[in-house]
Amino acid sequence: MSGQAAHVEEAEIRERIEVFERAIRAKDLEGVLSLYAPDIRSFDLVPPLQYLGAEAYRKPWEDTFASFQGPIGYEVRQLGVTAAEELAFSHSLNRMSGTLKSGQEVALWVRWTACFRRIDGRWLIVHEQVSVPIDMDSGKALLDLEPSATGAARA
Amino acid sequence: MSGQAAHVEEAEIRERIEVFERAIRAKDLEGVLSLYAPDIRSFDLVPPLQYLGAEAYRKPWEDTFASFQGPIGYEVRQLGVTAAEELAFSHSLNRMSGTLKSGQEVALWVRWTACFRRIDGRWLIVHEQVSVPIDMDSGKALLDLEPSATGAARA
Repeated sequence: MSGQAAHVEEAEIRERIEVFERAIRAKDLEGVLSLYAPDIRSFDLVPPLQYLGAEAYRKPWEDTFASFQGPIGYEVRQLGVTAAEELAFSHSLNRMSGTLKSGQEVALWVRWTACFRRIDGRWLIVHEQVSVPIDMDSGKALLDLEPSATGAARA
Repeated sequence: MSGQAAHVEEAEIRERIEVFERAIRAKDLEGVLSLYAPDIRSFDLVPPLQYLGAEAYRKPWEDTFASFQGPIGYEVRQLGVTAAEELAFSHSLNRMSGTLKSGQEVALWVRWTACFRRIDGRWLIVHEQVSVPIDMDSGKALLDLEPSATGAARA
């Protein structure tokens, strides 16, 4: 890949990720799913171990959107994108926030890796992984970690 | 990328992943670290949210190796690789097993995404994410999930 071309493709991926962010904030289910390749393999925050196919992934997104009253805050931060002509990947820390139907306020940082392919001219996510770290001794998910302000060293 | 070239690169990535597997089984710390780019960004199973740089990642690998008495079982299963000339990514379900120093037997499936770049002719991991799903109601990590035998639909 030439440096020049990679810049163009990186900009295209960043644009796709902005579309994704806006679709989540708008609880636009079809908008979110339109970013996924039909045969996506997803390692999501919640079980099972993996989802195979965009249609299998519809329900967890529906459930997520339904669990919030009012809008969802969703921000992609510390985004890194590496792109070539037909392949790309991104990694970022994403913050999801809002008020659950139960009245509970949530604000959660998740780690997000997305792998893209250009299919028939369009960049689609063919694989993604979303997670939080866990504490091995207690078996607890660590839902309240925050990135360091600098993003340097361990964040 | 041509189909032919992508096949060659896919084979190269699969070979690198076999080296990685063997290094983990042998508790070969330098072997594991030699697969990582110096500026790797890692989203690991355990906190913090991210590790920046291969050197920051040394300690968690040391701790992991030290926590097992005797050998570690490590198998990469359901491996998918997508590769182009200079970029590649892989996703798989990895099984780690063995006997902890405490005497406890463990056998854990983790989801693994690895993103590679060819740097000075060598494929190195520039980003990875390792995780298990979590149960949002209880806040527990789900450490006992197993992939379905078929790998079809939800696994």
